[in-house]
Amino acid sequence: MSETPCDGATILAQTARIVGPLIRSRVNGLPPEIRRVAGVHFGWQTEDHAAVRAGVDGKALRPALCLLACRAVGGAAEEAHPAAVAVELVHNASLLHDDIIDQDTLRRGRPALWAVKGLPAALLAGDALFFAAVHALTDTDRSASTIPVLLGSVQALIEGEYLDTLLEAEAEVSEERAVAVAAAKTGELFACACELGALAGGADPARARHLRAFGQHLGIAFQCLDDILGIWGEEQLTGKPARSDLRARTITVPVAAALAARTPQAAALHALYQQDAPMSEEDCRQAAQLIEETGARETTLRRARRCSTEALEHLALAEPDPVLAAELGALANMIVDPDR
Amino acid sequence: MSETPCDGATILAQTARIVGPLIRSRVNGLPPEIRRVAGVHFGWQTEDHAAVRAGVDGKALRPALCLLACRAVGGAAEEAHPAAVAVELVHNASLLHDDIIDQDTLRRGRPALWAVKGLPAALLAGDALFFAAVHALTDTDRSASTIPVLLGSVQALIEGEYLDTLLEAEAEVSEERAVAVAAAKTGELFACACELGALAGGADPARARHLRAFGQHLGIAFQCLDDILGIWGEEQLTGKPARSDLRARTITVPVAAALAARTPQAAALHALYQQDAPMSEEDCRQAAQLIEETGARETTLRRARRCSTEALEHLALAEPDPVLAAELGALANMIVDPDR
Repeated sequence: MSETPCDGATILAQTARIVGPLIRSRVNGLPPEIRRVAGVHFGWQTEDHAAVRAGVDGKALRPALCLLACRAVGGAAEEAHPAAVAVELVHNASLLHDDIIDQDTLRRGRPALWAVKGLPAALLAGDALFFAAVHALTDTDRSASTIPVLLGSVQALIEGEYLDTLLEAEAEVSEERAVAVAAAKTGELFACACELGALAGGADPARARHLRAFGQHLGIAFQCLDDILGIWGEEQLTGKPARSDLRARTITVPVAAALAARTPQAAALHALYQQDAPMSEEDCRQAAQLIEETGARETTLRRARRCSTEALEHLALAEPDPVLAAELGALANMIVDPDR
Repeated sequence: MSETPCDGATILAQTARIVGPLIRSRVNGLPPEIRRVAGVHFGWQTEDHAAVRAGVDGKALRPALCLLACRAVGGAAEEAHPAAVAVELVHNASLLHDDIIDQDTLRRGRPALWAVKGLPAALLAGDALFFAAVHALTDTDRSASTIPVLLGSVQALIEGEYLDTLLEAEAEVSEERAVAVAAAKTGELFACACELGALAGGADPARARHLRAFGQHLGIAFQCLDDILGIWGEEQLTGKPARSDLRARTITVPVAAALAARTPQAAALHALYQQDAPMSEEDCRQAAQLIEETGARETTLRRARRCSTEALEHLALAEPDPVLAAELGALANMIVDPDR
C-alpha cells in the first residue's frame, strides 16, 4: 500500500498537534514561577491572553523537519520526539533573548514577553528554556552523541545573533556577510533539527550529514524570505509591525544587497540608515521603496530559491524514503513561496 | 605518611591555578566573536584591561568544593575537573545575566560586561557560557548521570534569580522567603558543585547526597555573608561599590530581617525602600545604620554560622577522608569569617 505525501500546511499542523503537548509537558517540569512566565510566552496563560495556544510556533517548521528527517531514514517519528522538542525549545529561548536585544515589542501578534513581564522575566525564561532543551535530549539512549550536536549548533546560533548586532555598527556590509549571519542564526538550527532527526532514526554518518546540509541550506532560504517579509510583509501575516526590520535599521540580506548596489538608490538608503534620528513611518516606506528599486528584493528571492534547490540536492543524496522526500520537498517549496 | 591539610586561602589559590587554564581552554573553543567578549568578562583581553587574570573568580569557591568533594570520597581530583569547570562556567554565565538584570556596573572591581560591551554582547556571552558548561560535562563517561544533576541545579538557580527580582515588588517579605531565595540562587550551585565532585569520585548515592547537603547549607551561609558585605563591605574587598545592594533596594537576608523587626527603625527602613526617588548616598548610609540598629546584621551572621554548622554535620555523615574533611572545614570557616 503506497502512502500519499501530505502537503506542507498539513505537515505543520500535524507536527504542532504532536509536539505542542510535549513542549508543554517539558515546560511544566520547570520550577513554578519561571514556568508561569514561560507559559505567558507560549500563550498558555489565559489571565494574560484569551487564546490558549499550542506549544509551538504557528510554523512548527523546525520540529517538522526533525520528525520528517527521522522517518526519511526509516525511523519511527516517536524516536525523534525528544529532538523535535529540544530544537523548538532552543528556538523559543532564542526568540525571548532576541526580542530583548532588538527591543521588539511584538511577537506572533502578541506583546513580546519582556514588554509585558519585564526584562528579568524574559531573560531568565529564555535561560530556563535553553536548559529545558538540553534536558529533553538527555532522556534518549543516544544522548551522548546527540547533545554535542545540539550544543555545537546552539553556539553557532549564539555567534550568529551576536554577529547580527555587530553588522549594524559596520560602515560597509557585504551581502555575503549578511548571508553568513543568516546561515549561523537560522541555518544552524534547521541543520541541527534535520541532523538530530536523522540520528534518532538511526542514519549512518553520511546520511545524517546530507540531511544536515539540507537543513542548513533550507534555513538560509527561510531567513531570506523572512527578511523579505520583515520589509514587505503585512503585520497580519508576520505577527510583527510592517517594516519592523527597517525601523530597527537591521542589516538583513536584502538591505545588505541594496546597500551594495552602488546606485543613487543605494546611496539614499545608506543616508537613511546613517541618520541619527529614529526612522519615521515615511523613512521606512521610502527605504522599502529604495531597496525594491535596487532590485534587492528580486535578488534575495532568487538566492532563497537557489538555496532551496541546493537543499533538495543534498536531500536526494541522503537517499530518503520517497514519500518522506516528497514531504520534505513540500516544506522546502512552502518556504520559498513568498505568498505563504 | 600523613598529609597536612591546606588552609582555605591556599586551597582557593591552588584551585584557581588548576581550573583557570581549563576554563580558558573551554572558552577558547567558542566561536570567535563571542569568545572575544567572554574573554573581556574574564579579564583576558589586554586591549580592554591591563591585567590578564585567571579564568576563575578570585574566590574559586565552587570549583574548590567540587575538587575537594571528589577527593573526600577517594577520587582523584582530575576526575572532577570537567565538573569544576562546568560549575564555574555556570556561575560566570549567571553573573553576566544578573548584572544585566540588576544594572550593576561593577564586577570584581572592573566594569560589568554589559556596561562596556553592551547588553547584547553580555546576554549572548552568558548564553554561550551556559552551553559551554554543559559541554564541559559531556566529555566524561558519567555524563548521562551528571548532566541531569547540573540541569536540575541550574533550573533552581534561575528560579532563585527570578524570585529575587519578584521580592522587590512585594509589600511584605519574610526573612524565611529571603533565605529561600538565597538557597535557590546560591545554595543550589554550591550543592551541585559538591554532588558532581562526589559523583566524579565514585561516591555512592548516600555519600553524594550528604555532600550535596553540605554544599547546600554552605551556600546559604555564603550568601548571608555576601549580603552582609553588600551593605557593610568596602569596595576594595567586594569589587562592587559600598552599599550597592541598598542603592538597588535589593531585599537581601539582613534587609528582610530588619524589615520584619517591627521597631521604629524597621518602619523608617520601610519608608526609605518605598520612596519613589533613587536612594542617595545619605539614604544608603542611613539604611545601613537602621538595619544595624534592628540587630539584623547580628542575626544574619548567626544564621550563617548555624548554616555552616549544619553543613559540617552533613559533611561528617558523608564519612570523608580526614585530611579532605579538614580542608572542606577550612573553606566553611573561611566563609563565615566576616573578615575574609
